[in-house]
Amino acid sequence: MIIGVGLLGGSIGMALRNRKLAKQVVGVGRPGKLPLRAVELGAIDHAESEVKLAAQGADLVICCTPVQQIAELVMQCVPSVAPNALITDVGSTKLTIVKQIDAMAAGQGISNVPFIGSHPLAGGTDSGVDHAREDLLVDSLVVVTPHKVTAQMIKAPMIKAQSTEHLSEKACALWQSLGAQTMVMSAAEHDDALAQTSHLPHIVAAALAAATPRDLLPLTATGWQSTTRVAKGNAKLWRQILEENRLPALQALKNFAKVLERWQQALEQADGVALEQLLEDGKATRDALGS
Amino acid sequence: MIIGVGLLGGSIGMALRNRKLAKQVVGVGRPGKLPLRAVELGAIDHAESEVKLAAQGADLVICCTPVQQIAELVMQCVPSVAPNALITDVGSTKLTIVKQIDAMAAGQGISNVPFIGSHPLAGGTDSGVDHAREDLLVDSLVVVTPHKVTAQMIKAPMIKAQSTEHLSEKACALWQSLGAQTMVMSAAEHDDALAQTSHLPHIVAAALAAATPRDLLPLTATGWQSTTRVAKGNAKLWRQILEENRLPALQALKNFAKVLERWQQALEQADGVALEQLLEDGKATRDALGS
Repeated sequence: MIIGVGLLGGSIGMALRNRKLAKQVVGVGRPGKLPLRAVELGAIDHAESEVKLAAQGADLVICCTPVQQIAELVMQCVPSVAPNALITDVGSTKLTIVKQIDAMAAGQGISNVPFIGSHPLAGGTDSGVDHAREDLLVDSLVVVTPHKVTAQMIKAPMIKAQSTEHLSEKACALWQSLGAQTMVMSAAEHDDALAQTSHLPHIVAAALAAATPRDLLPLTATGWQSTTRVAKGNAKLWRQILEENRLPALQALKNFAKVLERWQQALEQADGVALEQLLEDGKATRDALGS
Repeated sequence: MIIGVGLLGGSIGMALRNRKLAKQVVGVGRPGKLPLRAVELGAIDHAESEVKLAAQGADLVICCTPVQQIAELVMQCVPSVAPNALITDVGSTKLTIVKQIDAMAAGQGISNVPFIGSHPLAGGTDSGVDHAREDLLVDSLVVVTPHKVTAQMIKAPMIKAQSTEHLSEKACALWQSLGAQTMVMSAAEHDDALAQTSHLPHIVAAALAAATPRDLLPLTATGWQSTTRVAKGNAKLWRQILEENRLPALQALKNFAKVLERWQQALEQADGVALEQLLEDGKATRDALGS
């Protein structure tokens, strides 16, 4: 079952169906809207409007909504899913989500939430199920963030709970079956890393675009275009990501500002050697990645 | 005649030859090196080692070397070129070059330098004649920067000098004949604009790449990759560009740092509305460009 059948949810649905990995893929769209376009495009078998209904007996739930809705939707599914179900997501941040799930579970007296966070490093600036494609995850990396607390919370011995390790292995197997590679780390480690590798680039791209006077756009070339490309992304979604991962993003921005200070100093002092070193530093890291 | 037969020089040579716009295209390579690979690839008809020899009777000289060599090479050509020749370049900065040419011309008592600066906004991170292609300039924009002083300097009435306007028109016609569009502005205007649309993105990309710990590279995705792409460029060439256009680049960096300060503040204050506005500001400018 997929909640939120957009670019990622739709692509996952297509892959699950085309690879015959699920008997039936049920999709839930935005509140009050059946994701009929996703059925048309072959991303899901069946469209459902209610999360609780759709989750009934589901072996797998993947929540592909904006990050700030994930915890709430996961908790709605918990009472309905099959006994050995895996619930996961594709959110760009992880720690806030598991903290929210923990708090809700504690508040509701639920001791067994079979949730493992996932974050596929795949996507694009074009959102929506119309851009979904069956191979979006192939050769991409999915970070899986097992959350110890889920296991530690299990106190009632009659509840046949799945261990965190078991759920984590299931999540990795799921993503691998869709052609992705997986990497396991804690939610906090993930968030710190992604602040630097994804959230900071977005801030930088948006700031660079905003700093460019409109009348100079005809004088931009491929350099400006690629450096600012991600600024085309959905502002409301990115606001959520940055709100959820605020402190790591702030730290990444401060580190970046320090590098820029060295640039400013080198330019102010007309220090050609320092400029070349700064250029070489950037080139060395960029070249280390390859393409 | 083309001095410096790399990506741009080679592409211009191919276009001049394939469009049959020149009787013969002579190319000069690095000192002491004949550009034989350029002959092999059809970028030039003939390879020459000496600039002065190659310039003999040339109707057109295009200097495609790193920016800090342009003024000197232009002055070497001046005594040898045909009476109605046009000398131009493809340098990414313009004001320093014309100032250097003026100073050298004054020092050598030369009153008629038929030079008009040009800057094709085309290229790529892969340099060298092996990446040259006949259509590199097609649909690109070339900025032409007529330099009034050249005309004002003409004092000896017996020298049949070409007016700046005439040279500027010739330069525009040249680039248009290669499929490019042209825009005319002063060298200072060009440098201020390009500091914002090209040099700042390079600084930002290099700083972002350098700020990323190497061990996090596996956790980068297409966003980081495109935002840092131009950092792959040649560090020595970019050092020259930034040295030549130091003050406009510094000003652009300071303006950018101010935008980043607003980002930092919004993150510190957990101000979601401000974050969304900053994201929207960047998106609006980026979307205004299109692709």
